[in-house]
Amino acid sequence: MGNKLRRNLFQQIEPTAWPHRGLSPLNWLLVVVILLATVSAILETEPLLARHHAAGFRVAELIFCAVFVAEYATRFWTIAESPSKHHIWRKRAGFVFSLAGMIDLLVIVATFSTLLVGNVAALRLLRLLRIVRLAKLGRMSLAMRRLQQAVVSRRYELGLTMGLALGLLILGASALYFIEGELQPEKFGSIPRALWWAVITMTTIGYGDVYPITVLGKIVAAFVAIAGIGLIAMPTGILAAAFSDAMQEEHEFED
Amino acid sequence: MGNKLRRNLFQQIEPTAWPHRGLSPLNWLLVVVILLATVSAILETEPLLARHHAAGFRVAELIFCAVFVAEYATRFWTIAESPSKHHIWRKRAGFVFSLAGMIDLLVIVATFSTLLVGNVAALRLLRLLRIVRLAKLGRMSLAMRRLQQAVVSRRYELGLTMGLALGLLILGASALYFIEGELQPEKFGSIPRALWWAVITMTTIGYGDVYPITVLGKIVAAFVAIAGIGLIAMPTGILAAAFSDAMQEEHEFED
Amino acid sequence: MGNKLRRNLFQQIEPTAWPHRGLSPLNWLLVVVILLATVSAILETEPLLARHHAAGFRVAELIFCAVFVAEYATRFWTIAESPSKHHIWRKRAGFVFSLAGMIDLLVIVATFSTLLVGNVAALRLLRLLRIVRLAKLGRMSLAMRRLQQAVVSRRYELGLTMGLALGLLILGASALYFIEGELQPEKFGSIPRALWWAVITMTTIGYGDVYPITVLGKIVAAFVAIAGIGLIAMPTGILAAAFSDAMQEEHEFED
Amino acid sequence: MGNKLRRNLFQQIEPTAWPHRGLSPLNWLLVVVILLATVSAILETEPLLARHHAAGFRVAELIFCAVFVAEYATRFWTIAESPSKHHIWRKRAGFVFSLAGMIDLLVIVATFSTLLVGNVAALRLLRLLRIVRLAKLGRMSLAMRRLQQAVVSRRYELGLTMGLALGLLILGASALYFIEGELQPEKFGSIPRALWWAVITMTTIGYGDVYPITVLGKIVAAFVAIAGIGLIAMPTGILAAAFSDAMQEEHEFED
Repeated sequence: MGNKLRRNLFQQIEPTAWPHRGLSPLNWLLVVVILLATVSAILETEPLLARHHAAGFRVAELIFCAVFVAEYATRFWTIAESPSKHHIWRKRAGFVFSLAGMIDLLVIVATFSTLLVGNVAALRLLRLLRIVRLAKLGRMSLAMRRLQQAVVSRRYELGLTMGLALGLLILGASALYFIEGELQPEKFGSIPRALWWAVITMTTIGYGDVYPITVLGKIVAAFVAIAGIGLIAMPTGILAAAFSDAMQEEHEFED
Repeated sequence: MGNKLRRNLFQQIEPTAWPHRGLSPLNWLLVVVILLATVSAILETEPLLARHHAAGFRVAELIFCAVFVAEYATRFWTIAESPSKHHIWRKRAGFVFSLAGMIDLLVIVATFSTLLVGNVAALRLLRLLRIVRLAKLGRMSLAMRRLQQAVVSRRYELGLTMGLALGLLILGASALYFIEGELQPEKFGSIPRALWWAVITMTTIGYGDVYPITVLGKIVAAFVAIAGIGLIAMPTGILAAAFSDAMQEEHEFED
Repeated sequence: MGNKLRRNLFQQIEPTAWPHRGLSPLNWLLVVVILLATVSAILETEPLLARHHAAGFRVAELIFCAVFVAEYATRFWTIAESPSKHHIWRKRAGFVFSLAGMIDLLVIVATFSTLLVGNVAALRLLRLLRIVRLAKLGRMSLAMRRLQQAVVSRRYELGLTMGLALGLLILGASALYFIEGELQPEKFGSIPRALWWAVITMTTIGYGDVYPITVLGKIVAAFVAIAGIGLIAMPTGILAAAFSDAMQEEHEFED
Repeated sequence: MGNKLRRNLFQQIEPTAWPHRGLSPLNWLLVVVILLATVSAILETEPLLARHHAAGFRVAELIFCAVFVAEYATRFWTIAESPSKHHIWRKRAGFVFSLAGMIDLLVIVATFSTLLVGNVAALRLLRLLRIVRLAKLGRMSLAMRRLQQAVVSRRYELGLTMGLALGLLILGASALYFIEGELQPEKFGSIPRALWWAVITMTTIGYGDVYPITVLGKIVAAFVAIAGIGLIAMPTGILAAAFSDAMQEEHEFED
């Protein structure tokens, strides 16, 4: 009877073992808890909220921690049902020392430490690791593999356009350093400083903290800006096309 | 004779019943009135205009209101001509309780209330709902269905790239919170605050109200910016391709 | 003999009559003069340049004017060689009252007026009309027709995505008007004022002259920004794909 | 025996002579040294670093210089193994006077001069030329040729869309010059000044140093912004598609 419960729980908790389409109810619940825990960890860093709702955040953390411990224990217990032929304790060791298992454990330890020693900054970041676990779920890991394949299949186009973009970045930063380096030493007084301007300009963000003020500087900046949008947008376009193609092939095989 | 008028009016007012290509003259007129009413509702919020042209806006609203009441009454009367086999009053109840019918009624009530109790802010927003009605017209509703299909057919690519973009958003905001949280507490003093910076940076808007000022912060921001444009632009590219494909298939079936 | 010169000149000056590939030497010369005249008209508006080089600009204008008069006279004389069967003076009248002919004449009159009555602002703009004439040249006019076809062939996708973008624009502006209208009356005090913010945000320009300062305003702005880049970028992607397809078909027919 | 060493070295140093896939170990080493030398040249311009680590930068430059001299000597010696039938000294002269050979020599002379006469600004720029050499490596030069072909194959689309973008740029700048030229003379007081605004707006950078402040100026700027993103993004999309197609054909031939 214990074995039957264990088998059912394994199907519920292990996405690849779920015999139906999509995610099991238990995994949907875990997705919701992970998202809530992430939102809670983000909101808790806000002093205005943390001050007035300290008790609430503490209770929420306790509940999340309990869920994650229960999940870890369930995985540890039910991994015995996995189809591999290894000994049951070998499977359990395999889970504990897998990347997923160690992230799970790290998150639990980080959450516990928060409850004991208080909300240290570094522990907060560790708790945000939970969100990484969502990447393991079902279709997403397939889409991720496709994305990797898309990157690999277009590595020369991507390499070239990124290389050209990097070259333009350095060229633009060097030009502005020569032209406005003495006029605005805080902003263009060295190539590394000018690179900040070049990145913020070529990505078209344009905060407005740094911009050329001489006529020549503006002319050069205009050329960098126009050439830049092409060079920055091209890898994106190539990647989107490759990724879209790779996913379409997948759909075709499916039908 | 009354039935003939009713049939003609039904063909004029119901886009799907119009036997010719495109929109009927009456529907073109209604499109123009809806657009004018929307522009009028927008302009009326401007104090400089509202003060000097209060009477003009009042008259315009009265005319728009009359048109919408007349339209509602016509629809209520002519729906009897619809091809369904239900009883005539069943059809009319169907129209009154349909989403389109309720929006029409809401808009009329909101416009009347404005004329009676004065221009309350919430009523203004209700009057803007009129523009939603344009979506029902002929080809547009088909294009809308195609857009929905395009979103559904690429849900995994969209989900993954949006998930990655969200992950980068949280990662970038957390990094800047750790690096500049103490230096610029108003801007990076918590992850939610830093998220505002991350969104405005990754969408390449870059207002310039928040930006990193330390060397490390700038280096991290540069990486977030470069990775971000790719991750934000990818879902857009995928969606545009899918939408374009879906519409092309439509054109093929048509020929 | 006069007829032979006229025939040769006609082939030189009329792009469609040129029997060889590309543009005739005379047309290349005219392209260069038009570009120089445009650059000169642009630079002349700069007070720092206009003050010190007034004589130079005057001489340049005189030369450009002479060239355009000579060109106009040549076209008027040689149009007689055009293959249409109309009477010679009918052809000339056709040239004078064509759009191209009237732009040519307008530009000449504007240039002369500048030389006589001084550099009035409105005349400057007229002189910039010269650049429009480049659109008539050879392949360009074909590419322009293809671009028009591309716009027409995807009019429903373009209409829908532009409509959605417009809807989001109005929705976002209305939301910010409700949220920050009283806090920043100069910037969000009416929907038309908030629309300036919405356009500059959704096009990702982000000057930084207007941005939300409340928490709720920032949350809404973040959603508008993320949804906006998709909706603004989609018509562009659709148009680029359609235009690229249309030009490719052209290349295929050519081979 | 000397010939055998020379043949091996030639295969190591000349990417096209390497009989295996990818780059030879020696070329990988040179790539790393070039990247390190570039980073070093960039960082050395930063006063805060240069002051405290002057000796370190000097030693690094010495090492990079020695590597580049050794590489140049090796190329000069081993070029004799190249498959062409010319006399051995003819081949060497060919290398010395090739573009690649002259860049190599220029970089060495610039590095030496830096060590002798001190870090003059112009010499720094020359040292950055090293990065250009990466473009010669293996697949990259093929991808570069494909990019050139993509540009050539779509020259009419690119020409037209760039021409339209340029026209809109001039039109937008002229309009703002007429509307706000007197109100903001420093920013819109001439068409060249207004062009700076137009470029920074149409590339969606939007530093925020220049923006319209009148209602009419904002309305015109909104239209320029919306039309501009389409016109600027279209050449990019066309180029990305053409480049992607050209590279795919390459992959097909390969299989």
